[in-house]
Amino acid sequence: MAVYTEVSDDELAAFVDSYGLGELMSYKGIAEGVENTNYMVRTSQDSFILTLYEKRVAHADLPFFLTLMEHLAARGLPSPTPVRDRDGRNLRRLAGRPAALITFREGFWVRRPSPAHCAALGESLAQLHMAGTDFAMTRANALSLDGWEKLNETIGRDAERVMPGLSDLMAGELELLSRAWPAALPEGVIHGDLFPDNVFFLGQRISGLIDFYFACNDMLAYDIAICLNAWCFETPKEFNITKAKAMLDAYGRIRALTGAEYDALPLLARGAALRFLLTRVHDWLHTAPSTFVKPHDPTAYLDRLRFHQGVETARGYELEAPA
Amino acid sequence: MAVYTEVSDDELAAFVDSYGLGELMSYKGIAEGVENTNYMVRTSQDSFILTLYEKRVAHADLPFFLTLMEHLAARGLPSPTPVRDRDGRNLRRLAGRPAALITFREGFWVRRPSPAHCAALGESLAQLHMAGTDFAMTRANALSLDGWEKLNETIGRDAERVMPGLSDLMAGELELLSRAWPAALPEGVIHGDLFPDNVFFLGQRISGLIDFYFACNDMLAYDIAICLNAWCFETPKEFNITKAKAMLDAYGRIRALTGAEYDALPLLARGAALRFLLTRVHDWLHTAPSTFVKPHDPTAYLDRLRFHQGVETARGYELEAPA
Repeated sequence: MAVYTEVSDDELAAFVDSYGLGELMSYKGIAEGVENTNYMVRTSQDSFILTLYEKRVAHADLPFFLTLMEHLAARGLPSPTPVRDRDGRNLRRLAGRPAALITFREGFWVRRPSPAHCAALGESLAQLHMAGTDFAMTRANALSLDGWEKLNETIGRDAERVMPGLSDLMAGELELLSRAWPAALPEGVIHGDLFPDNVFFLGQRISGLIDFYFACNDMLAYDIAICLNAWCFETPKEFNITKAKAMLDAYGRIRALTGAEYDALPLLARGAALRFLLTRVHDWLHTAPSTFVKPHDPTAYLDRLRFHQGVETARGYELEAPA
Repeated sequence: MAVYTEVSDDELAAFVDSYGLGELMSYKGIAEGVENTNYMVRTSQDSFILTLYEKRVAHADLPFFLTLMEHLAARGLPSPTPVRDRDGRNLRRLAGRPAALITFREGFWVRRPSPAHCAALGESLAQLHMAGTDFAMTRANALSLDGWEKLNETIGRDAERVMPGLSDLMAGELELLSRAWPAALPEGVIHGDLFPDNVFFLGQRISGLIDFYFACNDMLAYDIAICLNAWCFETPKEFNITKAKAMLDAYGRIRALTGAEYDALPLLARGAALRFLLTRVHDWLHTAPSTFVKPHDPTAYLDRLRFHQGVETARGYELEAPA
C-alpha cells in the first residue's frame, strides 16, 4: 500500500482540466494497491480514481486493460471505466507515468464473505465471462504454465528459506500440472485476480469489480478455481462447501459449466493455488524490508494446494455435477 | 504516510451508523498523515475523514484538539470539525484506537505558495489567533524551551551522525535561547504546525486549515515565526521578503503586531527553526528504515537557523515595523 509517485497540485489541475469534468476540488493519495499509485480525485462534478502505472504493470498491456474495462462497463458490469479526455484519449501521461482517470465506484470489500456474498460473486463472474465473449483484443496469460516455470526457476532453491521441502513440492506439482493441465476447455477473457479486496459490495449487492491488471485470455473455469481458493476457505486448510455451492450455483444460472469443466476443477484449483503460491514466495523473497509493500504470507496458498492435492475428483468437493 | 490500523467493514459500518449521517458507502485509507491513520469515508449523505489516533499523539490531549476544532469552526474558520454521534460524543473508540469522524474539507495544499497564498495564510492565521481568545481550555506547548532541552538530551552526540558539529551548534543555540527567549509577549492558542501541507486552497482562497495536533497555548508571534520559516523560504537558505511582507501585512490587518512582537521576530524565528531542526534530527535518527514514514531532511532547518542567526533585528528581514 503506497503512493510511489507524488503529483503536484499544478500538474494535476491542468491534467483534470483537459477532461472537461469540472475543476479539481481535492485529491488524496490512497493507501491501497500494491502495483500502482492511486489518488482519489474530486472535481466540481464527480469523484474519480487517478491511477499512475508503475513499473510492475507492463505498459504495453495498458490499452488491453483499459479497453476491457470500457467494454465491460458498456455491457452493464459494475467495473470502473477510464474516462476520455477532450481528445478522446483514455490513457495519458502524468508525473512521468502512464496515467488514467477512472470512474469512482462506491462500495467496499467484505472482510468475511458470507455464502450470499459468494453467490453474488459467482453471478458477477459469469456475467463478466459472458460480456467478454465479444471483446476483440487478446492478451496471453503471463502467469500460466510457462510463467509458473519461469517463476519457479527464478525462485530456485531460495524457496527452502520459506519452508524446507518447498522446492521439491513446487517442482513436483509443476511437473504434474504440465502433463495434466487441461487444453480443450472453453476460453475467454478472465479477471485472473478476483480476490475479495477487488470486489466492492453495498449490502449483499456487488457495486464494483476492480483491478483488471491481471486480466487475460484463458480457460473460464480457471477463473472460477481462483475464486474458489480466494473466497471459499475459512482458514487456509478449511474449505467451506456452503460458500462454494453458493458461488457455483449462482455462476451456473448465468453460464452452465460443461462436464469437462466440472471434471477439471480439482486440477484447475491446484494450478490456481500454485500460481499464487509461486508469486507470493517470489514476493516474499524479493520484497526489500524498506518498501511500503507488505508481502502476503505464502503458506496460506501452500495449505490450499495441499488440500486440493487430496481431492481426486470434483465430487470430492461435494459439489454437484452440472445437469 | 501510512495506514497503521486496519478497520474492518463490519465495525466501520456499525460505527458510522451510530452518527445518524447516512449509510456507509465507501472508505479508503489515505496515504497522508505521519502521526495518525486516516480514512476517507463516504456515507449516503456526505464525506468525512475518519482519524484513528496512534501512539504519537497523547490521548489525554485529544479533547483539547477536538474541542478547539469545534470552537474555531463555530467562529467561521475553515477548520474541519469532529461530528458528534447520537449520544453527543465527538471522541470514540474504533479498532482499539481513539477515533473521530471529522468533516471533509475540499481543497488541496499548494506545493509552491505565491505571495498571494502567503497573504491568505497571514489573514487566516490572525483570524485563528483572534478566534482562540475566548477558548476556555489550555494546553502547554510540549515543544518549547523545556521540550527542546529534553529532545536535545535524547539526541545527545548522535547529532554528529547527521552532521559533524551539529551537537555543539544546537547546544549553543539552546543556551542562547534559554537566556533570551521572550516572556511578556501576547499569548493565546497557536496552531504550531501550519506548514503548507496543512493549508488547503481552492484557487487563492483558503478552504481548509487542518492538523491541529500540535495546537497549544504560547506566544502568538511564535506561530508567525513558524509560518515565516515554512512559507517564506525559496530554498532553505533564501528568504523571500515579498512573501514575508505579504504574510505579515495581511496578518496585521486583522491583528496588529505590538512593537515588542516585531522586535522579537528574529529570536522567535531562531526558536522556530531550532524546534523543527530538533524534531527532524530526532526522527531522522529514530525512524526505522522499515516503517512507512519517510523522515524530513533536517538540514533544511539547519540552514534556516543559520540564516536567522545572521539577522540582528527584525529590520534585517526588511520588514517594516508596525505603525
